[in-house]
Amino acid sequence: MLTMQEALARLTAYWTAQGCLTVQPMNTEVGAGTLNPATFLRVLGPEPWRVVYVEPSVRPDDSRYGENPNRLQTHTQLQVILKPDPGNPQELYLGSLEAIGIDVKAHDVRFVEDNWASPALGAWGLGWEVWLDGLEITQFTYFQQAGGLNLDPVSVEITYGIERIIMALQDKTHFKDIEYAEGISYGEVFGQSEYEMSRYYLDDADVAANRQLLEIYAAEAQRLIDAGLPVPAHTYVLKCSQAFNVLDSRGAVSTADRAAEFARMRRLAGDVARLWVARRDEQGHPLGLVAALPPAAAVAAPAAKTNPRTLVFEIGTEELPPAEARSARDYVQRALTEGLAGTRLEHDEVRVFATPRRLIALVPSVAAQEPDHVRQVRGPKVGAPDKAVEGFARGQGVAFEALAVGDFNGAQHHMVEKHESGGAAAEVLAPVLAKVVSGLRGAKNMRWNDPQLSFSRPIRWLTALWGDDVVPVAVGTLAAGRQTRLLRTAAEPTTQIASAETFMETLALSGIVADPEDRHDLIVTGAQDEVYPEGRIDVAGEAALIEQITYLVEAPTPLLGTFDESYLSLPDAVLTTVMRKHQRYLPVRSAEGALLPMFVTVANGPVDVELVRTGNEAVLRARYEDAAFFYRADRNTSPADMRERLTRLTFTDKLGSMADRSARIAALATTLAEQLGLASATLGRAARLVKFDLGSQLVTEMTSLAGVMARDYALHAGEPRDVAQAVYEAELPRNTGDDLPASIPGALLSLADRLDLVAGLAATVGLPTGSSDPFAVRRAVLGLLAVHRAHPALSGLSLLDALHTAAAQQPVPVAASVLESTGEFLARRLEQALTEEGRPVDRVRAALPHYARPSVVDTLLTQLDTLAGNPDFIAVAAAIQRARRILPAGTTAGYDPAALTEPAELALHEAVSGVKATYGADLVAFTAAVEPLVEPLARFFDEVFVMADDPALRTARLGLLAGVRDLGEGLLDWPELRL
Amino acid sequence: MLTMQEALARLTAYWTAQGCLTVQPMNTEVGAGTLNPATFLRVLGPEPWRVVYVEPSVRPDDSRYGENPNRLQTHTQLQVILKPDPGNPQELYLGSLEAIGIDVKAHDVRFVEDNWASPALGAWGLGWEVWLDGLEITQFTYFQQAGGLNLDPVSVEITYGIERIIMALQDKTHFKDIEYAEGISYGEVFGQSEYEMSRYYLDDADVAANRQLLEIYAAEAQRLIDAGLPVPAHTYVLKCSQAFNVLDSRGAVSTADRAAEFARMRRLAGDVARLWVARRDEQGHPLGLVAALPPAAAVAAPAAKTNPRTLVFEIGTEELPPAEARSARDYVQRALTEGLAGTRLEHDEVRVFATPRRLIALVPSVAAQEPDHVRQVRGPKVGAPDKAVEGFARGQGVAFEALAVGDFNGAQHHMVEKHESGGAAAEVLAPVLAKVVSGLRGAKNMRWNDPQLSFSRPIRWLTALWGDDVVPVAVGTLAAGRQTRLLRTAAEPTTQIASAETFMETLALSGIVADPEDRHDLIVTGAQDEVYPEGRIDVAGEAALIEQITYLVEAPTPLLGTFDESYLSLPDAVLTTVMRKHQRYLPVRSAEGALLPMFVTVANGPVDVELVRTGNEAVLRARYEDAAFFYRADRNTSPADMRERLTRLTFTDKLGSMADRSARIAALATTLAEQLGLASATLGRAARLVKFDLGSQLVTEMTSLAGVMARDYALHAGEPRDVAQAVYEAELPRNTGDDLPASIPGALLSLADRLDLVAGLAATVGLPTGSSDPFAVRRAVLGLLAVHRAHPALSGLSLLDALHTAAAQQPVPVAASVLESTGEFLARRLEQALTEEGRPVDRVRAALPHYARPSVVDTLLTQLDTLAGNPDFIAVAAAIQRARRILPAGTTAGYDPAALTEPAELALHEAVSGVKATYGADLVAFTAAVEPLVEPLARFFDEVFVMADDPALRTARLGLLAGVRDLGEGLLDWPELRL
Repeated sequence: MLTMQEALARLTAYWTAQGCLTVQPMNTEVGAGTLNPATFLRVLGPEPWRVVYVEPSVRPDDSRYGENPNRLQTHTQLQVILKPDPGNPQELYLGSLEAIGIDVKAHDVRFVEDNWASPALGAWGLGWEVWLDGLEITQFTYFQQAGGLNLDPVSVEITYGIERIIMALQDKTHFKDIEYAEGISYGEVFGQSEYEMSRYYLDDADVAANRQLLEIYAAEAQRLIDAGLPVPAHTYVLKCSQAFNVLDSRGAVSTADRAAEFARMRRLAGDVARLWVARRDEQGHPLGLVAALPPAAAVAAPAAKTNPRTLVFEIGTEELPPAEARSARDYVQRALTEGLAGTRLEHDEVRVFATPRRLIALVPSVAAQEPDHVRQVRGPKVGAPDKAVEGFARGQGVAFEALAVGDFNGAQHHMVEKHESGGAAAEVLAPVLAKVVSGLRGAKNMRWNDPQLSFSRPIRWLTALWGDDVVPVAVGTLAAGRQTRLLRTAAEPTTQIASAETFMETLALSGIVADPEDRHDLIVTGAQDEVYPEGRIDVAGEAALIEQITYLVEAPTPLLGTFDESYLSLPDAVLTTVMRKHQRYLPVRSAEGALLPMFVTVANGPVDVELVRTGNEAVLRARYEDAAFFYRADRNTSPADMRERLTRLTFTDKLGSMADRSARIAALATTLAEQLGLASATLGRAARLVKFDLGSQLVTEMTSLAGVMARDYALHAGEPRDVAQAVYEAELPRNTGDDLPASIPGALLSLADRLDLVAGLAATVGLPTGSSDPFAVRRAVLGLLAVHRAHPALSGLSLLDALHTAAAQQPVPVAASVLESTGEFLARRLEQALTEEGRPVDRVRAALPHYARPSVVDTLLTQLDTLAGNPDFIAVAAAIQRARRILPAGTTAGYDPAALTEPAELALHEAVSGVKATYGADLVAFTAAVEPLVEPLARFFDEVFVMADDPALRTARLGLLAGVRDLGEGLLDWPELRL
Repeated sequence: MLTMQEALARLTAYWTAQGCLTVQPMNTEVGAGTLNPATFLRVLGPEPWRVVYVEPSVRPDDSRYGENPNRLQTHTQLQVILKPDPGNPQELYLGSLEAIGIDVKAHDVRFVEDNWASPALGAWGLGWEVWLDGLEITQFTYFQQAGGLNLDPVSVEITYGIERIIMALQDKTHFKDIEYAEGISYGEVFGQSEYEMSRYYLDDADVAANRQLLEIYAAEAQRLIDAGLPVPAHTYVLKCSQAFNVLDSRGAVSTADRAAEFARMRRLAGDVARLWVARRDEQGHPLGLVAALPPAAAVAAPAAKTNPRTLVFEIGTEELPPAEARSARDYVQRALTEGLAGTRLEHDEVRVFATPRRLIALVPSVAAQEPDHVRQVRGPKVGAPDKAVEGFARGQGVAFEALAVGDFNGAQHHMVEKHESGGAAAEVLAPVLAKVVSGLRGAKNMRWNDPQLSFSRPIRWLTALWGDDVVPVAVGTLAAGRQTRLLRTAAEPTTQIASAETFMETLALSGIVADPEDRHDLIVTGAQDEVYPEGRIDVAGEAALIEQITYLVEAPTPLLGTFDESYLSLPDAVLTTVMRKHQRYLPVRSAEGALLPMFVTVANGPVDVELVRTGNEAVLRARYEDAAFFYRADRNTSPADMRERLTRLTFTDKLGSMADRSARIAALATTLAEQLGLASATLGRAARLVKFDLGSQLVTEMTSLAGVMARDYALHAGEPRDVAQAVYEAELPRNTGDDLPASIPGALLSLADRLDLVAGLAATVGLPTGSSDPFAVRRAVLGLLAVHRAHPALSGLSLLDALHTAAAQQPVPVAASVLESTGEFLARRLEQALTEEGRPVDRVRAALPHYARPSVVDTLLTQLDTLAGNPDFIAVAAAIQRARRILPAGTTAGYDPAALTEPAELALHEAVSGVKATYGADLVAFTAAVEPLVEPLARFFDEVFVMADDPALRTARLGLLAGVRDLGEGLLDWPELRL
């Protein structure tokens, strides 16, 4: 059995053999290997750097007295930095796994999107967590920025979580059981320290002392920055970070502190980074400079051919995030289609497929050659001075005599006819394909070792064949060839493609399913087969997950795993959240819909099924064990105590803690209830608890369980069922299509929650624009609308008024203009929602003035559905519209009836006077009330000329019409209505 | 070329293969690997522990901005702990050197006494520094105590100084040039950090901030101790230590601070240690318990023989300190001689030889058998009651009839005669030899893996042969055999000895020179041969060094090395101090006595001469480079600035800083000079400088250069020659036989220095007793006496009065009783010194009342030499002695002359009255003055009976005699004088 210390030695030796320096861990406490100057400082600037080191990483918050099997206050990282990106870091990494005896062909090793950012360090990067049979064993990042500085060259950062890897390799279920060295367990060596340091971090660290330490460290860091000494300054930044973490784990960090400390650390880290770069510069870069890779030269163009052939173009990447792969596919489809349209090559339809590692464009029957072509160049008009015509000929390089005459838009012009021969396919295609590659962009883009390219993940190879010929594409450092890469675990991971026509077959033979639809089907049927007959996969319910899995594998291999039935005592939501969100496992249910103790995972490519199954089962067991640990701990904590912890959770810098927010929600819900006469003991109690479960360990770990756990814990704590339900419903809806609060207390809390969020964020962060909506304000607004619409009992509530109330509660002033645009935003979302539901847009717009009470809008729309066929309604509506058209702006309904003369107008006057405006916002009542007008109106418009010459008469008639107009006032935006 | 990181990896792998755990460096700054809990905590208690780790060790005081080629603020230790002592740790260690490519057979690897103690940790151990061709590369310690607790089992601690080893292996002269990894130098990787951290430690660290840190850390440590958490408490003790070191390197530690901080750290470390032990106990010792080695069983006794044979007994040890080897040799000689005397075995003379690794006793012609023997057991006297006699017979187990009668001291007794047969040699010798071994003790003793034994260094084997037979000795875990160990580098490091008679030959053949005298001669002649003809070894001058070398090697191999002539510009004392004290090299001089740029080192055993020469030359070059670096730096510092630094050097806790002491010396010297009328400008100036060079870098490194460097730096700074000389002379004499101050200012400063030291220490630490004299008070007293005696001009100075003056200046009260016993101590040392000089003890004692002015004692003794033959003096002296004998105590010289009657007494009365007592302490003058008494005295004693019956007459006669007695009062202690 490989001991932990052997594994560390082997990994170190492996990376040393790859040219890495070995340095020592930092001699002050750090939370991660990234903080060691061998990473944080060395990734800066233009010098090359390759290093490997062990870093015992201290996370006071993860202290568990050594009791939790998977969580330690100090865990061991092995950190590797490759600067610059060597071009094949994933392959090097897989080699390192082999070095510690992991057969990567037998196991399911995957690169799963995981981006990394440390706001406190001004650092971020894109990359993956690496999964070994579902277990996250490594963080793999292309480091893009540190200390707020762009990194050029980019470094590859590989961080191994050693305890987890060893637990998996040694098949241990508790870290203490790891065989650290031969015959000596991890627990024997580190157990006491784990317990005692946990005691320090959780219970015994002196808060006042650590606060003082934090201040002293920060002051020293600043002084050293001022003295121009980045190295000691950096150590003090690290000490700041540790002191802060200690305070945090002791629960002593207030919202204000946290925001201020992060800002201070970010500033200090940025200063250190800039200083370091300046110093290295002054020293002339002792380690030399990284040379940028030279641009690639394309292969020579092939000889011209005659017959049409297939074009295949493959862009090989490192594992793309699923969403990125999908959108990149769409882009390639569009860009290539357009690109080809810009040529004169005939071709069949463009088809594009995406897998995590490749984008493949397939275009059948691409002509060998563009047709030849005569291009007419227009010269001066016939009759222009000779000099001009001669000048044109000279400019075109032809003799005067060679000019012809042609018709251009009906005018005769001198012209030159240029005979252009069509390009050969390869030559014509090359720039088109190059442009497709260089135009690739993701939602978040990164750089690697290619100075020209930028994309979601590195592009590593290009395969471009037209028939048998390589299309001579070259972009950045990449030149296309006929070589493609198969699964990394294939016997021959790269292969030569004979011709474009055999490309897809070659992939298929190697197990790669290029077409996402095929992969989807394979996953669904494969998974169902695995669980047959006792279990069922809820294909519709799991559609999103299945779609994601489709883009996580190239060669789907569904496997069934089981877990101990005892875990079924955990809440369903816990079990499925872990499966879906953390592990991308498909839950399995009985015919009755009950969860079964099994799951389906989809491995990539041929693996040792038993090995991978066992591995995944162990991972799930550990996760469930973890969840069970938290669940038990939470159930031993009162809701009040959890609620108390919210004081330590920041909502945002300016909007206070989650406790502040929870208090605002409670107050707002109560106020609204009182306004509506809906106050109740249930609401009162639920308001005191709302969001308390954010202070639970389980929800801290899995935020998506907020609400669900609140209900569970509240019930467990003996709260009444309706209170527990209301606290749960306060979180609803969590996304579009989610359940809505069923109870009034739940609905009021839900509204209050969303109103508070929207008011506060609109005032501080601003309303969402474009796709950026980090605080999910859009979702909150949609929730507001949905909840209101679901509860007729709340129809009396104006969301706009409620928003004003919410605004008044914010710790920051909310300007009237902000509330105005928020109202507008609300209205637009409602309009959008209703039209998306299929409501006629004219009626939606007509009812939209009631947007603040969306359930009223609903009612109006429903009434309109009926009234659309009611001639009385139509007549009155038409009259109102007509009146609005005729009446000059500002015309009021006041008039002197004595001035009226015509019987038709007198009749209308009488009818209008008789209408009692008691119909509120009820169109049916309105219709009934105005029915007596129909006849007089028709007569009036037939017989009376409103714009009489006599001013007094005209005024009276306009006034009469204004009276008609005003009957509809406040009911609908009448002009919008199409009758 | 082996890179530094390869070396670390190989050493780690080597020790891992020996069963060591690998752990990580401490994640808070530590000054040495010992402080890592993997050492400090794990050496405590009964659990086994083997560990290897790298420890970047931070020594703020060693900061040199990266400029000094050999000194770094952070150097790399590789630390190994073997608990328990595996029995062969030296051999394992040598294996580790082989693992990094050091051919230990070609190089000169030696274990040179170096004991380790950390008062701040309450820790100590005995061991060696390991030399590789003269370069200290490793500290090797048997850890005896930590946190004030005795360690059982004992741990072996091996600490490699990696940079030094690598510099030697890579033949680099600056640490920055080390090839850290392939193609990357140490300077490139760590140079900037070395500079910047030096800046922090020397210039930029905020003193107030670090003081605060120190207090906070100490408070946290205390709180955690109170909470029963040794692990986090320990980290805070380490942080205390680092904060203290930072303050120290910033020159911000006052004397009071230092003493208090050390006491606090020692207390905290002790508490941590006790807590840790208690916790491990509570946990039932997770790593198990070390089993004590079982006692050895002796080999079977051989069959009885007949002929006398040689006995050889070898006690094999690890390298003994030279002084210990010598005294152990003496002990074995004595103990074995006595032991054999307790047997009836005939034998020739016992001879004992010692080398660093063995004590060999050789006894020729030891009889094969003790003679048989009749022992007489005395019973009751003849005539005693029958019952008593019967009881005796019964008690002796013989029949009544078997009793005999014998003469015991002239009385007739019943007796039993017991016939005892003599034992065979092997059986008789075994317990004798065992007792010799178990009785071995050094000045400082240690424990290792043998539960029974305790000695200066571990005893590892016993060889005991009588003729061809193994003597069946067993002590502790050791059983004697016929196997001995040769040089560790021999082809066969162990060998079997056929018989005692061939033992010495076997050793000799393997190159081991057992007899120290032979080794001495080999060293002297070999060294002289090496330097012939241009150089000479000052054999007499270097006697102490040669004696030491004699006990550092078993197989002396003198080698000549050279150094660059440019270093000859350094002061001679610097060059020779480095050679002698640090390197044990013999300096080489020209016929005229000038130092030549060469040296002789004496390797142990056959080595690759060129390799070892080169290695030693590099070491000396580095040391001289270091010294030159300090020398240049010092010469750029004014004496006043160096003097200022003394405020940071503690003398003792209670007696203040060296600056305080220097001020006291200055004041005292000035006072004494004024009392004696010897004040001068030279003294005044010199007093302001005295001891200033203790603040220089060079003297900080090599304290034995104090005074020498003062003179050099003072002259360089432009001080007058006589001032510089006086400052130098203030340090004289540095040891017995050293030069004495020649000038009066020098002598006064020297006296003041020693008076201050003696007064202060006598009051605080106490006067030295036995061999313990940590502050060298005895040497100071001898210096006082020597200086006084050398300067007749100071004869008027009473050292006792001066001591009172010195006492009055101390920052602590000095009790009268202390001064009294100090005077007594002074007198005894003077008596001892004078008798050792060959002065007759009676005269010395007679003159001793003048001990406070030793030069007066000298004068008196010189006069006595002459007067011993002067009949007048003898007569008067005899009369004074006679008078003292006759006179009852308390008799005064007052008498009534009128009462005298006899002519003889009247004549004496007249003569006595005529003596003028103006001779002071001058015996010659005294003799001249009392000469007129000779005749009357003779007559008086002949003719007068002093004790007359008449009381008045008797009183007058006694008074007359008292007058004679009093003539000698204050001159000598007359009764002591043998005439």
